[in-house]
Amino acid sequence: MDLKAYLEKKRVQVEEALEVFMLQPEGLLAHHIDAMRYSLFAGGKRIRPILCLAVCEALHTDPEPYLRLACGFECIHTYSLIHDDLPAMDNDDLRRGKPTNHKVFGEAEAILAGDSLLTYAFELLSEPIVGNGLQPDDQLEIISLVARAIGPLGMVGGQSLDMKSEGHKISFETLRYLHSCKTGALITAAVQTGAILGKADDEQFAALTTYGKKIGLAFQIVDDLLNVEGSAEQLGKAVGSDEKLDKATYPSFFGVERTREMAKDAVDGAISSLINFDTQADPLRELARYIYYRKK
Amino acid sequence: MDLKAYLEKKRVQVEEALEVFMLQPEGLLAHHIDAMRYSLFAGGKRIRPILCLAVCEALHTDPEPYLRLACGFECIHTYSLIHDDLPAMDNDDLRRGKPTNHKVFGEAEAILAGDSLLTYAFELLSEPIVGNGLQPDDQLEIISLVARAIGPLGMVGGQSLDMKSEGHKISFETLRYLHSCKTGALITAAVQTGAILGKADDEQFAALTTYGKKIGLAFQIVDDLLNVEGSAEQLGKAVGSDEKLDKATYPSFFGVERTREMAKDAVDGAISSLINFDTQADPLRELARYIYYRKK
Repeated sequence: MDLKAYLEKKRVQVEEALEVFMLQPEGLLAHHIDAMRYSLFAGGKRIRPILCLAVCEALHTDPEPYLRLACGFECIHTYSLIHDDLPAMDNDDLRRGKPTNHKVFGEAEAILAGDSLLTYAFELLSEPIVGNGLQPDDQLEIISLVARAIGPLGMVGGQSLDMKSEGHKISFETLRYLHSCKTGALITAAVQTGAILGKADDEQFAALTTYGKKIGLAFQIVDDLLNVEGSAEQLGKAVGSDEKLDKATYPSFFGVERTREMAKDAVDGAISSLINFDTQADPLRELARYIYYRKK
Repeated sequence: MDLKAYLEKKRVQVEEALEVFMLQPEGLLAHHIDAMRYSLFAGGKRIRPILCLAVCEALHTDPEPYLRLACGFECIHTYSLIHDDLPAMDNDDLRRGKPTNHKVFGEAEAILAGDSLLTYAFELLSEPIVGNGLQPDDQLEIISLVARAIGPLGMVGGQSLDMKSEGHKISFETLRYLHSCKTGALITAAVQTGAILGKADDEQFAALTTYGKKIGLAFQIVDDLLNVEGSAEQLGKAVGSDEKLDKATYPSFFGVERTREMAKDAVDGAISSLINFDTQADPLRELARYIYYRKK
């Protein structure tokens, strides 16, 4: 299959859905909605909603009625980027080549734009879905698992631990836990949501959960690698100069070569977990490989 | 009825429920959970969860199974206070006589503690409620109405508008809209949630919605009055010296006397809306009066 064409088709579909389901900048709150839209439409790859939709398809379920719900994952991802970029956090000026939200709208508005995107995600997740056989208790379960994944013991907790760990030596166990919260939990939640929407049985749900966890891990390991390689290019220094890094990363524990093997292992594990799925799951298999080979 | 005893009994009940349903500061994320708990257990009056429970009772429904869900409103209220106090927003050092969250835990952790409290609220709102006859679609409706009330067109939008209006002349219409979003929406949502939990019919739901909106309005008008009177006491100047205020308030538009009348009108309107409710709604009636006569 042609993953590039698949991703592009799905990205356009998600982009169109976001345009339909996101608020328009009108009335007294136009400025606030502009701030939300600025980051939401800053050109993301839309991997999390696409994962959710692709899992539906792997389970032979038409994902079309769930586009609005899937958009919730992009709102959550965008909120997390806006808050992570804030001066009090990573203090980043650029994101995807554009000035960060607080650089354009100021710090107060950036905090609020993030708050609203998070809240709006729950609006998208909780609105009734008409004519598709999804039961309200399934939808409640989705909201509950998403909230758990992105809250104090999930994504936000991971970011807190990341902040707290900066400049300190941390163990590999702490790093692994931090990654699983900060990056893995939302990706796994998107996959699990697709599994519920596609009416996965227990065995399928477990297999897809493993898939989600493994690609979440691979995603973060490759992120670490790209950061090292990126820095190396910028600094003109050898790749893997661990002592130059002030943050714990997979390469700082294992070196670049072993880290790349670990990423490969995670991707292989993700693909193996789909052994009982037919060719409808090929996009999921290709997505796992894509995570390993991606360049940004 | 003895409102003081009622409020104290309910406050203790909510306090105990918060203790049961809030996370404990354990493991790697103990610091983060400490930051959440610091503000959550800083001695609030718990008015929003109490309103939700009191509405249940007004509808002859035992609110006990809904304590966890009602705690969600306190998490949301606390998150909004933490973010409002941030240096980039109102830059307050004290809240309820104690150092604000960012003064104790730093700005990054305060932002994250707020994010987690908001997210945790949706966890509390979405967990299955056992053995009480609440239908999953009713619970979905609650989540949806809460998300709308506190999102971009509700509470967060109101705070954004408030920030944007600082130092500018705004019309009374803008002030009224700002208040209805920033303060009124969450209070109304707590009341409407109680109405759904108590299986209100359409007429009861409409009456309770009016009640919620009117007490939300009264709450904000009285807040404005207390601020003016508080400043006056502190500054040793005459009450109602509008020109000293750099923020638009009800007294700055109408003077203190007319503002007090407007608060009284709102409270009377709230009480009138309950005309078809029996004595089980007396706590709601007394709560409306309490808002008018409160001193802080």
